Amino acid sequence: MSMPIQSISLDRSSPGTLKDKLKDALLSQIRSGALRSGERLPPTRILADQLGLNRGTVSSAYDELVADGVLNAHVGRGTYVEGVPVNGNLPQGPFRWTDHFTDLEVVPRERELLAQATRTAGPDTISFAGLVPDETLYPVGALRKALNEVIDEYGAPLLAYGPPGGHDIFLDFLRGYLAEERGVVQGEQELLVVNGSQQAVDLLARAFLRPGDTVLVEEPSYYGALEIFRGYGARLVGIPVDEQGMTVNGLESMLAREHPKLMYVMPTFQNPTGSTLPASRREELVRLSSRYQIPIIEDDFDGELYYDDAPPRPLKSLAGSEGVIYIGTPSKMLFPGLRIGWVAAAEPVIRRLSRIKQVSDLSGSALLQAALARFAEHGELKKHMPVVRKAYGRRMRRLLASLEEYMPEGVTWTHPKGGLSILVSLPAGLDSSELLPDAIAKGVMYTPGRLFFTADGANHLRLSIGRTNEPAVETGARRLGEVLREALAKSKKVGRRERGAVLPPV
Amino acid sequence: MSMPIQSISLDRSSPGTLKDKLKDALLSQIRSGALRSGERLPPTRILADQLGLNRGTVSSAYDELVADGVLNAHVGRGTYVEGVPVNGNLPQGPFRWTDHFTDLEVVPRERELLAQATRTAGPDTISFAGLVPDETLYPVGALRKALNEVIDEYGAPLLAYGPPGGHDIFLDFLRGYLAEERGVVQGEQELLVVNGSQQAVDLLARAFLRPGDTVLVEEPSYYGALEIFRGYGARLVGIPVDEQGMTVNGLESMLAREHPKLMYVMPTFQNPTGSTLPASRREELVRLSSRYQIPIIEDDFDGELYYDDAPPRPLKSLAGSEGVIYIGTPSKMLFPGLRIGWVAAAEPVIRRLSRIKQVSDLSGSALLQAALARFAEHGELKKHMPVVRKAYGRRMRRLLASLEEYMPEGVTWTHPKGGLSILVSLPAGLDSSELLPDAIAKGVMYTPGRLFFTADGANHLRLSIGRTNEPAVETGARRLGEVLREALAKSKKVGRRERGAVLPPV
Repeated sequence: MSMPIQSISLDRSSPGTLKDKLKDALLSQIRSGALRSGERLPPTRILADQLGLNRGTVSSAYDELVADGVLNAHVGRGTYVEGVPVNGNLPQGPFRWTDHFTDLEVVPRERELLAQATRTAGPDTISFAGLVPDETLYPVGALRKALNEVIDEYGAPLLAYGPPGGHDIFLDFLRGYLAEERGVVQGEQELLVVNGSQQAVDLLARAFLRPGDTVLVEEPSYYGALEIFRGYGARLVGIPVDEQGMTVNGLESMLAREHPKLMYVMPTFQNPTGSTLPASRREELVRLSSRYQIPIIEDDFDGELYYDDAPPRPLKSLAGSEGVIYIGTPSKMLFPGLRIGWVAAAEPVIRRLSRIKQVSDLSGSALLQAALARFAEHGELKKHMPVVRKAYGRRMRRLLASLEEYMPEGVTWTHPKGGLSILVSLPAGLDSSELLPDAIAKGVMYTPGRLFFTADGANHLRLSIGRTNEPAVETGARRLGEVLREALAKSKKVGRRERGAVLPPV
Repeated sequence: MSMPIQSISLDRSSPGTLKDKLKDALLSQIRSGALRSGERLPPTRILADQLGLNRGTVSSAYDELVADGVLNAHVGRGTYVEGVPVNGNLPQGPFRWTDHFTDLEVVPRERELLAQATRTAGPDTISFAGLVPDETLYPVGALRKALNEVIDEYGAPLLAYGPPGGHDIFLDFLRGYLAEERGVVQGEQELLVVNGSQQAVDLLARAFLRPGDTVLVEEPSYYGALEIFRGYGARLVGIPVDEQGMTVNGLESMLAREHPKLMYVMPTFQNPTGSTLPASRREELVRLSSRYQIPIIEDDFDGELYYDDAPPRPLKSLAGSEGVIYIGTPSKMLFPGLRIGWVAAAEPVIRRLSRIKQVSDLSGSALLQAALARFAEHGELKKHMPVVRKAYGRRMRRLLASLEEYMPEGVTWTHPKGGLSILVSLPAGLDSSELLPDAIAKGVMYTPGRLFFTADGANHLRLSIGRTNEPAVETGARRLGEVLREALAKSKKVGRRERGAVLPPV
């Protein structure tokens, strides 16, 4: 009946309240069986004396254990062990992880569909899915040379932690490159290097967005960006895109009404449509950004990939573009695996992004940045661009010609002058997500339209030409044509049947 | 007096409301001067007819422009242009960027102090700041060889977009490495590669934390992790660390009371103290995590850097550790510039993190992952570890001996058996942030204690040995001793003077 209090020792040197320490010590004795059910605990005064505690501390510990159902207090008779703590409100069994997660990150159904499609696709499936550059065009040898040179020249410091904003060697190259090739002239504190332009959008969302904020996006837009904005709880408002890029008609009133926190725009060879904003719309966007003080994220991910004539210069090269936050990347012109991207913006923006980058992943790889700068210094970028422009131009022309040949009536598509993708629009009633398994069965893959739209988008799909060679482009278009023809035939039949079933015969 | 309505054209093909389009067209004419102040607008009925609009649409557009102060409606006389829209509530002048940012990311004052200190430090300053491995120990040549081999062997695919979870070559290596070297045995879907362990903590915070959630951290802890948790709006509760690592006395009651979402623990060579949890405390932590279903982030960033005897195995190697989310990195054993880290956890956690990583930066560099795997396959990691263990062990012993020799009375410090850092505690009243400029003046740098504590921490500082060679360790300790001696002398004088001024003479 007496409790082995001599075995209780409270570690006073470690902080934490003495009450909690006493509770844990008692629990531990009960759990180990040293204190058994029905045993009486010493009166608070006696235990307090023996342990050198305040009596109130012991009382509180007892009270809380009574409340937990571990002890039982009988008035006038003392305090007894009730039993091993069962803690009925404690979760039992294995971790239920989904109860622990925040619910901001949702995988769109079309992502799952695509992943599944990729698993079931045969080896001779022609994939128009994924906006990726053609691996067979990668200048691997020139990069290998540049890598070795910078390792030999700079050595260990390229393998140390780098500054969060990017390595000086790369920033120097970048400043010259942007000024010369893109007309984007930036000061020393107005550039930031990131892990691909995807990270740029993510850092920007983190810097600017609170749940419930509005973001104006093109409709359709890049789903990777839409997912980021949604992940931060933003409300997306889509601005329609035509063959001239984002429409600006009615935009001013919309800005005045919606007060969006950000606009996200791809002015050149837009993803997924391939549309390009003419100079007049560019000027209007810059004017509106400045007038309403609404930052524009200008995603120039493939502005260099024109087939014949260079497109208009980026928004960020225009006068009055302080509110434009320009992002770029070598991922589509060269290779995405370097995971390099950049941001050109006003100094306060760069400072903020740099700080968020420091907190979230410290820095990027100085080695890869230095190698890319060296690669460009060797003139390899200038040499490479005409090669890819020509290759993709030929391939896109072949795709457009094949679509003319193989698409059934009622199907339309965009006519890009650069980049890697076009948007195909199907007659109403066809659903590109539902058709994907049929397409896979016929040996062709695409990206379903729903991913790119803030609402609906089912009767669109994106075709990208980075994973196909020229003959494959034609074969793929032919296969897609068959899929769509069959679907149209079926939908007409079903339509007729359904009408027959629902409406009384006339 | 008549308005040039023939010049108004509304683009009907682009979506957006006709009302907004009309408003923009009118605004644009007013702004350009085509419509001047005092001019009368056509009656709504006439304009509606001419533009083929519903009359209500024109009325609404007029009404809203009247409300904006751009038009003026005189009952019975029609609607007039009031003037160029001034929009008094529009922000004027350059962007006020700070008004646009979310305020979650705050730069701690000590970060600024350190940055400033680094700028003012002379070339012979001995830096104990920054937990970085010694660049002179980097096995650069072996990595260069591995890089070239994997480029030659795999080529272009290493420069393509990789899977968000990491490259297969690296995951295969990692599974073997963790099982063999750390006793952490994981299935195929239970590992994730990230950009350094910093990104692991960031992704975990994003997966688990909502503003206001509680995170239990060691007191003191790694400031980079504290900054992440604070950035997601978490409330930090510090659990004291002693020479045996995080104290577990009183922890159970605290868990039951606080219901934290996460615990963040560095069981081995803890940053900043260098303390290591004994096996018994490890078991208790795993038991508590499982019992209360509270995930533990186990940051094993330098568990391999022991000087003599291997420390106990990670929490994640113990039975019942499903709730333990293990993170590791080669950044301290090899070089941080690869920006590689990993997470070993239950499949649902990996799936969630992988998705968040995909959204936030698509993937890491397959090239660097493949090169590191090849480096290890060559036995270079096994060869390298004894070298760094010995070098850092010798250096740490020299530091401890130098502190014995040069520290004034009242200064204490931890005694790590591995890793790169120790925590020095100053007599009450000394403030390591305030002393930093004096230290720089004497040619020695450290990291101020406040960064590591959830509250206070001013009279602590961290010394790291990665940037110093052995003689520099001793010189640095001597200089630090001088700084502290002078500060103590000054504080005593000030103390006496102040006491003299405040208390009446006795």
